[in-house]
Amino acid sequence: MEMTVNVAVIGLGARGLSLLEMVFMEHPLVKIVAVCDVYGDRCKAAAEVVVKKGQPQPLETTDYKEVLSLPNLDAVLICTSWEDHISMAIEAMEAGIYVGLEVGGAYSVQECWDIVRAYERTKVPVMLLENCCYGRNELMLLNMVEQGVFGEIVHVAGGYLHDLRSEIACGQENRHYRLRNYLHRNCENYPTHELGPLARILDINRGNRLISLTSQASKSKGLQDYIRRHKANDKNFLNADFAQGDVVTTVIKCARGETIVLTLDTTLPRYYSRGLQIHGTRGMYNEENQSIFLDGVNDQDHFTWSKHWGNIEKYRKQYEHPIWKQYLEEGVKQGHGGMDWLVYADFIQAVQNKMPTPIDVYDLATWMSISALSEESIALGGHPVAIPDFTNGKWLGR
Amino acid sequence: MEMTVNVAVIGLGARGLSLLEMVFMEHPLVKIVAVCDVYGDRCKAAAEVVVKKGQPQPLETTDYKEVLSLPNLDAVLICTSWEDHISMAIEAMEAGIYVGLEVGGAYSVQECWDIVRAYERTKVPVMLLENCCYGRNELMLLNMVEQGVFGEIVHVAGGYLHDLRSEIACGQENRHYRLRNYLHRNCENYPTHELGPLARILDINRGNRLISLTSQASKSKGLQDYIRRHKANDKNFLNADFAQGDVVTTVIKCARGETIVLTLDTTLPRYYSRGLQIHGTRGMYNEENQSIFLDGVNDQDHFTWSKHWGNIEKYRKQYEHPIWKQYLEEGVKQGHGGMDWLVYADFIQAVQNKMPTPIDVYDLATWMSISALSEESIALGGHPVAIPDFTNGKWLGR
Repeated sequence: MEMTVNVAVIGLGARGLSLLEMVFMEHPLVKIVAVCDVYGDRCKAAAEVVVKKGQPQPLETTDYKEVLSLPNLDAVLICTSWEDHISMAIEAMEAGIYVGLEVGGAYSVQECWDIVRAYERTKVPVMLLENCCYGRNELMLLNMVEQGVFGEIVHVAGGYLHDLRSEIACGQENRHYRLRNYLHRNCENYPTHELGPLARILDINRGNRLISLTSQASKSKGLQDYIRRHKANDKNFLNADFAQGDVVTTVIKCARGETIVLTLDTTLPRYYSRGLQIHGTRGMYNEENQSIFLDGVNDQDHFTWSKHWGNIEKYRKQYEHPIWKQYLEEGVKQGHGGMDWLVYADFIQAVQNKMPTPIDVYDLATWMSISALSEESIALGGHPVAIPDFTNGKWLGR
Repeated sequence: MEMTVNVAVIGLGARGLSLLEMVFMEHPLVKIVAVCDVYGDRCKAAAEVVVKKGQPQPLETTDYKEVLSLPNLDAVLICTSWEDHISMAIEAMEAGIYVGLEVGGAYSVQECWDIVRAYERTKVPVMLLENCCYGRNELMLLNMVEQGVFGEIVHVAGGYLHDLRSEIACGQENRHYRLRNYLHRNCENYPTHELGPLARILDINRGNRLISLTSQASKSKGLQDYIRRHKANDKNFLNADFAQGDVVTTVIKCARGETIVLTLDTTLPRYYSRGLQIHGTRGMYNEENQSIFLDGVNDQDHFTWSKHWGNIEKYRKQYEHPIWKQYLEEGVKQGHGGMDWLVYADFIQAVQNKMPTPIDVYDLATWMSISALSEESIALGGHPVAIPDFTNGKWLGR
């Protein structure tokens, strides 16, 4: 019988609780030994889920330090407010505990260096749990890129294009950290969807690296307009000024010469998309119409392209990624279309085997640093800022 | 009977000749009195078209100065290489001749100032013949913006997304100016599709203005790859290095706080698109799937958007622009889906009535300056550059 993995969860807001219920408690090897949140009611609700699912009562605590001092803890999952992600991860690594870190952006370049140094000092792995790296389309397209279907890749794009107005506007009631971030900061605050998958397509930190970026934000009007129509009773909130621009566009240059356009669009009415685009010398993909255009195949339809919208499905059979082929055979588990299961299963497997994590500290630092760097660029009127080489040259040989 | 307008055409490459045949010779008020190109064979071919269509033999000349010294010339249409656009336009304006200028970008900010000053000195109107300002979808969406359907506009995007590899790679045989530009320059070389329509949506130079931009270019691989496969016999050309990056991304900030993302994507395999996006506080449009998402109307389909692809057609009846309503009733003329006819008809009407042109010298200077400014920003690693106020403050009151 395989050994179970003792796991604690810190941060039990909407994301943490739903992961607990739908992913962690469903994993045959995970034993939840502690649940922690600054709000006691959240701990209680989480512990009830654990017991209801048939596991023993876990430790309930509002003090994460108590969690990190538990004996026999194999891994901690950090699903807290963005502000605490990196510092808590470092503390856990220093306590010798594997860290699974939910996504978000960094607040300074320094904290990205800090976690890199913590890893290099302790050798305790940390994994950024970027579920979109396990998206079905993302993995299939990565497979196509690796097989050369699009030729040499020269430009990609992606974004977090998700209408979060009601979540943010209800941030007081829901105790959600996004509200204070949107009130006071202006940046690409959620870069890792879709930068994670794009970084894999472009071999970032493995033969390529992010060199510099420019970032610009539109004015901030979406939340104000929403609150005036939906929360007009709250007189204080009605006059709130949001620092966060509605649409933030960040353009990144890579060492090999590729450009990446990242878009954050979370406070305007829109459909959900991660806006993935791949442009190479032999073809392109655009998520907005889920179509693949290949040189020499689709040439006759330059001006009649709408008839090929959705043609990604035609390529499924040939290019489905092995990870998803196996997953489909075994039965896709719930959670963001199955991505959550895959990313957490990979993490748990690394913990169990005491192996490195597939998304490592250098990826984490590089991807998360984009928030701090875009904040800097926006504040400087779109001035280009350098993206540090967190590998200190190791990207050349990895 | 309405007076005819005496028109000369300078520049008779593919664009000039096809416009002559399909638009100018079809216009009931246009009399072509001269055709001019540096290549005599092009003049001859153009003159044959004029005669074949039943008009008298026009002057054929390779010297544009001869054209500008003609008596009774009402207007000149400049369809030459980009490099000559502005200087020739200025000479024509100084000769008192209305100028219709085909699209392209400027090579320096100074030449944009020069044409503004030429207009202010001579009061002779010039019109940038930006046909995309007359696109059916562009005008319908402008109509929707003006009626407030999308709420307050905060972000827009557009581009010139057109695979021109074969045109550029055959530039020697076809004597096409794009070839030398792509070999030696790296910039947003064709900004006015879709900046023209976007500028109208955002009231640029009429209550709003473009403030600054950053521009970044990807590496240049598309033409090289194409030439290796399609022109491998030409040993010199095979090793040509193209300065022009395959994809250029330019982000513009406006005085009222909107952002504009402009994309140039002309040397990779792809379908044609102008990539129009409109994002407001009440809704959005995306040309890639030709769909309109409206707040309070489409909310239930955030995650199932593909079923609404192409829904722009549902809005035709209600929001078709009056210009197009009339045009459809009268019968759409050929030429880029009818846009060419409309833009030239507007120009000819202005000439005939000795009125100002609907796209004027300030629009021309502002839109065309983006090429020179993006070249500067790219050369400076994406550094933000200021966009001059060519109106010197008149945008506040226009």
